[in-house]
Amino acid sequence: MRHIHLGLIGFGNIGTGVVKLLRDNADILEKRLGTKLVLKKIVDIDIESPRLTAVEPQLLSTDADAILNDPEIDIVIELVGGYQPALKFISDALNNRKHVVTANKALLATYGNDLFQLAAKKQRNICFEASVGGTIPIIKTIREGLVANRIRSVLGIMNGTSNYILTKMTTDREDFETVLKEAQELGFAEADPTFDVEGVDAAHKLALVLTLAYGRRVPLDDLYREGISGISQQDVEFAGELGYHIKLLAIARQHDELIEARIHPTMVPFHHLLANVNGNYNAFHIIGDASDSVFLYGQGAGMMPTASAVISDVIDISRDILKGVSWRVPARSFQEETIEDINLMPVENIMTHYYFRFSALDRPGVLSRIAGILAEENISIATVIQKGRKKGQAVPIVMTTHKSTEQNVRRALEQIDRLDIVQGQTVLIRIEDDRLP
Amino acid sequence: MRHIHLGLIGFGNIGTGVVKLLRDNADILEKRLGTKLVLKKIVDIDIESPRLTAVEPQLLSTDADAILNDPEIDIVIELVGGYQPALKFISDALNNRKHVVTANKALLATYGNDLFQLAAKKQRNICFEASVGGTIPIIKTIREGLVANRIRSVLGIMNGTSNYILTKMTTDREDFETVLKEAQELGFAEADPTFDVEGVDAAHKLALVLTLAYGRRVPLDDLYREGISGISQQDVEFAGELGYHIKLLAIARQHDELIEARIHPTMVPFHHLLANVNGNYNAFHIIGDASDSVFLYGQGAGMMPTASAVISDVIDISRDILKGVSWRVPARSFQEETIEDINLMPVENIMTHYYFRFSALDRPGVLSRIAGILAEENISIATVIQKGRKKGQAVPIVMTTHKSTEQNVRRALEQIDRLDIVQGQTVLIRIEDDRLP
Repeated sequence: MRHIHLGLIGFGNIGTGVVKLLRDNADILEKRLGTKLVLKKIVDIDIESPRLTAVEPQLLSTDADAILNDPEIDIVIELVGGYQPALKFISDALNNRKHVVTANKALLATYGNDLFQLAAKKQRNICFEASVGGTIPIIKTIREGLVANRIRSVLGIMNGTSNYILTKMTTDREDFETVLKEAQELGFAEADPTFDVEGVDAAHKLALVLTLAYGRRVPLDDLYREGISGISQQDVEFAGELGYHIKLLAIARQHDELIEARIHPTMVPFHHLLANVNGNYNAFHIIGDASDSVFLYGQGAGMMPTASAVISDVIDISRDILKGVSWRVPARSFQEETIEDINLMPVENIMTHYYFRFSALDRPGVLSRIAGILAEENISIATVIQKGRKKGQAVPIVMTTHKSTEQNVRRALEQIDRLDIVQGQTVLIRIEDDRLP
Repeated sequence: MRHIHLGLIGFGNIGTGVVKLLRDNADILEKRLGTKLVLKKIVDIDIESPRLTAVEPQLLSTDADAILNDPEIDIVIELVGGYQPALKFISDALNNRKHVVTANKALLATYGNDLFQLAAKKQRNICFEASVGGTIPIIKTIREGLVANRIRSVLGIMNGTSNYILTKMTTDREDFETVLKEAQELGFAEADPTFDVEGVDAAHKLALVLTLAYGRRVPLDDLYREGISGISQQDVEFAGELGYHIKLLAIARQHDELIEARIHPTMVPFHHLLANVNGNYNAFHIIGDASDSVFLYGQGAGMMPTASAVISDVIDISRDILKGVSWRVPARSFQEETIEDINLMPVENIMTHYYFRFSALDRPGVLSRIAGILAEENISIATVIQKGRKKGQAVPIVMTTHKSTEQNVRRALEQIDRLDIVQGQTVLIRIEDDRLP
């Protein structure tokens, strides 16, 4: 049987894992696939530095065209990351009728529409299992495993770095800044952590999940997004007192024609599986109309876990190649001609539970004035915690609510924050709790 | 584009779900697949009784040949269950070059070798996602998602009924017999519960998981199996005191050439995801050499969740049919010519942690004699609980051990159970606890 020839562009951390895995598990890969995978060329701007996995020098090149223009290469693995030249590499590969495997969520979330259309036109596969949830087969599960379902909702912990930070803030009772610095020293967070801690990376992943779940084009900038840099140790502790852990959740939920999509810190009840996903792990809680709850969990990043996902795509494509077919499963889960623009629910219209922390002066009538404004906006209070008594000083008043509308909440907080008895801005954290009405 | 024609044999609970799902979600199924799925014929021995989903009378027949001999039907969905006539239906379908979707774990675990060989010879797909883990895409995950991995281990809660019973015994502090009776009244357990509570159903599923993970033929009777009918409320309570929940685990683990495989009640530490799988749910904790931990969770049974898995197989096969290919992914995950007999580790050689509950007379020297025998057999004690003091009467002495060998444990218990100070048979429950040495 013919061999499958691979070209790898990007010999960094994940690329090294891919080379290692192709080598270490060559025997079982062949037993499963029925033929050999041959890595013909590795391209990187730096081919001098030593890697964990040594390769023969003639495999290496700094010229991507050595892969993109080699007619023998069947599959191009793009692990460069970023927008350019990754976009050019993938476009060239598809134009040269090569299949593509990529882990590049930023690129796909931004330029995916063009790339998927190009792939469909060229009838070449573009696979991206490694781009969301690392080793977790979340793409395959939404696109194939749950293919028979209308996806009611997907709730996910899609960024390992921010989950690591929130976990450490919870277990070690440390501030965001302290934990972030530690994470940077350990290599778990980047020097510029914006993408991870401000929910940008999670938004890229949610955009891809939305596309697969609903077959829609998703304008990245329209996704409502809040990061975790505003979460204080005080809020982590109050959350614990109320029976919640704080997680950076990416949330997708269908309401007839409208789709709710948002990324923000969320309080999740202790008993929920998502509340128990700690450290660098990622997880997805999917509800399908037929499947009911399905929960997937695993390493969202890391050299070998991500390489595992990359190779799973390589094998999937290789099976197509060996049978002489392609574009067997549409890249966006739905047939290209059915893909429409997404109809996002305005964030003002979402309904959920809320946690508020007010900094109020400890004077008679404070609670009554805050509660009065909330009542006027139809916001029903579920619990109240008021602690500490420092005459004339601000004390925290914590409230959780029954299901309320975001726009009412915003209107109420605007009024409350203008009260002379309230200091600073009220902290708002949304709660996912299906036990509350 | 051509339509895909389906024949359904078995119009029971799951069959009704399949018909309902094909109808309710026809629109999105077509948007995803690119063509229509047409259910051409439904066969059952009883076509008179009303179902939740009404169908036109001309769709119904009592004669399986109406499906098996219809050249237009592409895919036969077998949901009859049991050995015969299901075996004949599937064999006839494959011989007539039809693809097969089945949820029949008992049949595949018993006669799978012949059926898979027949399917390979005829180059027809035989898909069985619904046979293990209900709605959870566990087959697809092992076979495709984790294809790049050597599977180090799979630990699973594979039987919902026994998990329901163990959960109720834990939360409601009731005896096995009481909970079983309740479960039978609620329809969660069969009148004859043997298959579920004695681990037979879990053994069928473990046999399939072993085949997919390791590419081996598995003689069902060689799998070590214990059920949950011997679990007492007392042991559930002691487990809780020690920080464990008792679960019926199916365990597969690779040790070089030998594979460990066993089904038995197991104590799992509270913090482990598997310990938190409650009620009817199933779950799988897989460790791959590259992927590290992957955890999947969902409904292991039920009309619509199982139908979701059945239709996912139907779509997978339909995609092959539309591209004019078949046998794209080998049914047993490995190429047929590489499938070998499994080399099971003798149960006497397994090493794990143990929980013992001795019924000992409360006399001086009892603990010393028990501990002495354990020491002679190289069994190192981790914890001891001794409670209650009734002079001259039996009291429970509970011990957990560090990692010990099953044969040493059996030898020690045989000696201990012969002591005049020990009454009845010592209770042995194995523990999975990676925190213990």
